[in-house]
Amino acid sequence: MATLRSYVTGSWHTPGEDGAPLHDAVTGEEVVRISSAGVDFGATLEYGRRVGGPAIRELTFHQRAALLKALASYLRERREELYGLSLRTGATRGDARFDVDGGIGVLFSYSSKGRREMPNDTVYVEGAVEPLGKGGSFAAQHVCTPRRGVAVQINAFNFPVWGPLEKLAPAFVAGMPSLIKPAGQTAYVTARLVEMIVESGLLPEGSVQLVCGSAGDLFEHLTEQDLVAFTGSASTAQKLRTHPVVAARSVRFNAEADSLNCSILGPDAVPGTKEFDLFVAQLVTEMTVKAGQKCTAIRRAFVPESLLGDVAEATAARLAAITVGNPADPAVGMGALASLGQREEVRRALKALTAAGSIVFGDPDRVDVLGADAERGAFVSPVLLRVDEADRPEPHEVEAFGPVSALMPYTSAEHVIELAARGQGSLAGSVVTGDAGFARQVVLGTAPWHGRLLVLDAEAGKESTGHGSPLPMLVHGGPGRAGGGEEMGGVRGILHHMNRTAVQGSPDMLAAVTGRWVPGAARDTSGVHPFRKHLEDLRVGDTVVGGPRRVGLEDIEHFAAFTGDTFYAHMDEEAARANPFFDGRVAHGYLIVSLAAGLFVDPDPGPVLANYGLENLRFLTPVYPGDELTVTLTAKQITPREGLEHGEVRWDADVTKQDGSSVAKYDVLTLVAKRETPELRGGQG
Amino acid sequence: MATLRSYVTGSWHTPGEDGAPLHDAVTGEEVVRISSAGVDFGATLEYGRRVGGPAIRELTFHQRAALLKALASYLRERREELYGLSLRTGATRGDARFDVDGGIGVLFSYSSKGRREMPNDTVYVEGAVEPLGKGGSFAAQHVCTPRRGVAVQINAFNFPVWGPLEKLAPAFVAGMPSLIKPAGQTAYVTARLVEMIVESGLLPEGSVQLVCGSAGDLFEHLTEQDLVAFTGSASTAQKLRTHPVVAARSVRFNAEADSLNCSILGPDAVPGTKEFDLFVAQLVTEMTVKAGQKCTAIRRAFVPESLLGDVAEATAARLAAITVGNPADPAVGMGALASLGQREEVRRALKALTAAGSIVFGDPDRVDVLGADAERGAFVSPVLLRVDEADRPEPHEVEAFGPVSALMPYTSAEHVIELAARGQGSLAGSVVTGDAGFARQVVLGTAPWHGRLLVLDAEAGKESTGHGSPLPMLVHGGPGRAGGGEEMGGVRGILHHMNRTAVQGSPDMLAAVTGRWVPGAARDTSGVHPFRKHLEDLRVGDTVVGGPRRVGLEDIEHFAAFTGDTFYAHMDEEAARANPFFDGRVAHGYLIVSLAAGLFVDPDPGPVLANYGLENLRFLTPVYPGDELTVTLTAKQITPREGLEHGEVRWDADVTKQDGSSVAKYDVLTLVAKRETPELRGGQG
Repeated sequence: MATLRSYVTGSWHTPGEDGAPLHDAVTGEEVVRISSAGVDFGATLEYGRRVGGPAIRELTFHQRAALLKALASYLRERREELYGLSLRTGATRGDARFDVDGGIGVLFSYSSKGRREMPNDTVYVEGAVEPLGKGGSFAAQHVCTPRRGVAVQINAFNFPVWGPLEKLAPAFVAGMPSLIKPAGQTAYVTARLVEMIVESGLLPEGSVQLVCGSAGDLFEHLTEQDLVAFTGSASTAQKLRTHPVVAARSVRFNAEADSLNCSILGPDAVPGTKEFDLFVAQLVTEMTVKAGQKCTAIRRAFVPESLLGDVAEATAARLAAITVGNPADPAVGMGALASLGQREEVRRALKALTAAGSIVFGDPDRVDVLGADAERGAFVSPVLLRVDEADRPEPHEVEAFGPVSALMPYTSAEHVIELAARGQGSLAGSVVTGDAGFARQVVLGTAPWHGRLLVLDAEAGKESTGHGSPLPMLVHGGPGRAGGGEEMGGVRGILHHMNRTAVQGSPDMLAAVTGRWVPGAARDTSGVHPFRKHLEDLRVGDTVVGGPRRVGLEDIEHFAAFTGDTFYAHMDEEAARANPFFDGRVAHGYLIVSLAAGLFVDPDPGPVLANYGLENLRFLTPVYPGDELTVTLTAKQITPREGLEHGEVRWDADVTKQDGSSVAKYDVLTLVAKRETPELRGGQG
Repeated sequence: MATLRSYVTGSWHTPGEDGAPLHDAVTGEEVVRISSAGVDFGATLEYGRRVGGPAIRELTFHQRAALLKALASYLRERREELYGLSLRTGATRGDARFDVDGGIGVLFSYSSKGRREMPNDTVYVEGAVEPLGKGGSFAAQHVCTPRRGVAVQINAFNFPVWGPLEKLAPAFVAGMPSLIKPAGQTAYVTARLVEMIVESGLLPEGSVQLVCGSAGDLFEHLTEQDLVAFTGSASTAQKLRTHPVVAARSVRFNAEADSLNCSILGPDAVPGTKEFDLFVAQLVTEMTVKAGQKCTAIRRAFVPESLLGDVAEATAARLAAITVGNPADPAVGMGALASLGQREEVRRALKALTAAGSIVFGDPDRVDVLGADAERGAFVSPVLLRVDEADRPEPHEVEAFGPVSALMPYTSAEHVIELAARGQGSLAGSVVTGDAGFARQVVLGTAPWHGRLLVLDAEAGKESTGHGSPLPMLVHGGPGRAGGGEEMGGVRGILHHMNRTAVQGSPDMLAAVTGRWVPGAARDTSGVHPFRKHLEDLRVGDTVVGGPRRVGLEDIEHFAAFTGDTFYAHMDEEAARANPFFDGRVAHGYLIVSLAAGLFVDPDPGPVLANYGLENLRFLTPVYPGDELTVTLTAKQITPREGLEHGEVRWDADVTKQDGSSVAKYDVLTLVAKRETPELRGGQG
């Protein structure tokens, strides 16, 4: 029997021993063996730091994002093979899609986020400039730079594709190489995935390494620049996060652990309502997808006391319609657990749970299976419990990591908030209700214990992705028992892989460090009008000054008549004076920015293609009839677009009046052509 | 001799034993005794959770911020008493101002940030709405809610006032009560501070508790909703963060530890330059303020090889001018260490350091002191080392927590980046240079190892707050050896005390939960024009629809002539067609928003006082001559201002054209009067 290889220090490593067997979850046959014998963990980490990291960091965020997109497309073409392998883990085709397509979806999402929400640069500037002195010579800006270590993934067995990809995507965009260590049971799926990534040749060498088998002395070699992203049991999380090296070197450690997630049915959602049906359907889905082996699955279902019987009955009926068996059979709705060992654990947990309540559906010790041997495969029946004494400890403490949920009654919103909190921290919760007041009360009451909360009503039900689905643009993680961590969440997950630094200095130094113009930094008015420069020729700080232009009462009246904006502050001297902010009639804000544009544009055809927006506009001082306006427009940030013939230029606009005071400040957003744009040559010709 | 009291569960607790003596750093006399005997730590935490937390959470962020401001003013009036007490800790008046005024400054800063950057609400909405379905029925928004536990502060001895206040301020604005545990040596200063806070009666009961003495079994009682903010040694940080309860319950643990911070002199900063002088002056300040007992002090000073002698000479000369002695004497520039024990530790560290290099200034074992007994008080001389072999391990590993720094040579930017990294993570670093290229290279190269980096040039030198000063609006913390944590940083520090939750649901449910209108949520056009409603009467979702209005070529030409904005895309059909984004001449973006205002305003005097800005404006579809515009304006967020007669209303503006497509989307920001505004009544009359 073959043994899984690891991909370390640039090549495929075959272990020096056979290793431990991994078994087919459905047939019990041996699939492959696993061992990390012979892997030099210190050298592996160092390879990531010395080869992978620098290669990724040479690329801009947009370039990294583009590679993720290419990788996502490459993997999507090959997903059937991954579905096929997943059958052996006990996963149905639907389960495998959840895992495989879900993982590929994270790559696409991070590719999109990276291009839309990050600059085309290698430094991420976060937040506003913080002025630190009244004289304007000292200010600060926060920048995020990639950590110079390796993102070490310790993954769980239940998502052999999604797990590594959801961790790889934000790490890669951030600029960090990954070392993937899959859980044993399903490591052969992850190993094939990494083979595909390596075969694709898309990512720079060293970006991704793989260790199949035990982590050996990996943790001994961690440094303050590495980070660990762990998914798995709370007890392993505890062991790893207290590892002496992790603690001594403050290794950033993120844990995502199983939790006793709850779903709450609103009192309004009586039988016959759409919400009642959504609740039952979702509960059954969460129990049976991946045979309930999801960290986010519903373990505790809270329903109003009076509805307990109805919900039990409806859920049992739906469960009865689900065929358990060989996941290769399309008639099968639920496959096997990942291993016989997992089944033992589920049965053990069920013993503890049945001390607190009764079984409404399912037999922990037997199940009819289709197309497989019920004992040789790791099959178990879905089991629905009913715990009438909701205050008992077991359902809030004991997790059966399989197709098991407990129904419990609650008496009021306050009561169910308290019950939810007894899980001591969860990844995901849901509130199924059409009552917005109940939703608000329960969401805000339970939010401190949850990383994600789904409010499900008839409207959301049309497109809901469900209680159990982490999404790349939303944070995934939860306090307390759920591990206290946070993954994904769009750009948040990228920044988790970077170090945030407050940089202080003079405006010119801040501009030099960040590559962006900041207020107070040098302006260059010496050259041609900046609207005459192509993207490559434009420099941060390039400035045009326009004006002055006098604003007369006739301009205000004319603008009011033309636009229809006859707001009293512009038209009625007495009413304007009565306004606490004005000493009399004032010019329209819209008039000020319109006139400013007239003062700064260079009208002839040229590289500036369009003004696509405006940001952070503040009107700072009223403009009265007779005031004279001057505008200073300065190139602030230049963002070339990969593969396109233009880029974005953000300009700082500062409109002042005759006494030098600022009347309006804002950012003007434009599209500017690169040098060799055929359309533009035409336009200019 | 008296024993310090603790303030727990609503009253002052006198320990049941005398406790350990605390000694005057200058005279060696006993000041007071300290013990936490008899404190019930479980009850103390529970009191914070049951009494303090709910009382704070009843207030909005703005109300909490206002209380912090009142507290800051109250303490400022009483700061002389705190300066006086600080003398006994060895601190000069300047040192005490750094501590006391610094702490009060954090309260003012957080008060300001809370009012300017947080909503006047109890829920913080973070980031944009994330659409999750193409149909618009399912979306998400991240909300942050206060953790329902206690913010436990374990403070260091060196900042007995700033330490507790910099942790209290963000916790309080977030909605969390604090439990302050000062370090023994200087606990009497913190105890007096907390007495003042309690005496002020400004903060709700339970917001602040104090334990003087050992932490006893405090950690055994922590839950997943509590958090620990630790400042102190790396070894204690390691012990506390691996406490079984912290690990098992994922207690949020933030550590801020001493680190081997560096300051780097640029090759351009030769003797005679302003930067050379700034470097030397700053180094001496960092060595001597608080007798070098600052986590952020410069321990490693890197200078170009050729300048090593000049820097050593100039620094030694400045150090020689500093009088060590009784901090009560105004002629004294540097006081005592906090205790004789600290002096022993500094001497021990110096022994290790002198193995690597030579002493340029100072004698570890003797110092002339003014107005005190050099041996009974914890006095030590400033000691400047010179380590010519910069690659030796000692200066990068051994920290003398006193007035000690080591000068080391570097040969290139790459070399100094590598040397800086050998500190394995620092709180603060500085680069003193007038060369923007060098600054950029070194800042970006060392940023992964730093929480804060100061670029000091002649310009920044005019207002620089210095290498060693953490500022409330900037993150304070650092990777690796510095503890891997992050404090303050403006709103970031507030959010650290909250739990982030992704809330998914239909737009109406998201609006109900967040209290803000979100795209797709219900709009109410049934009532009077929303500009006729006072702040209290306006509801999120109140909407006015205006239009349609046709935009003719004559309008575009007229607007161009009037404003002077004759950009080719508006004026030249052929050039506009050649533009890749347009099919011909288009209306000005400024014309569109100006006309939209004409369509949505209600012109008569009324509660709407002013349009003070615009945000997130995007032009989405070109408007061609003949197109007809309609605008929908919806109240999105309503922010009453505490103590003022108005508030802010953010409106969602959506300009569409005849085919229903959006032409422009943006937020309009207005000031709206509350009902009983005298000025307004006049204006309306």
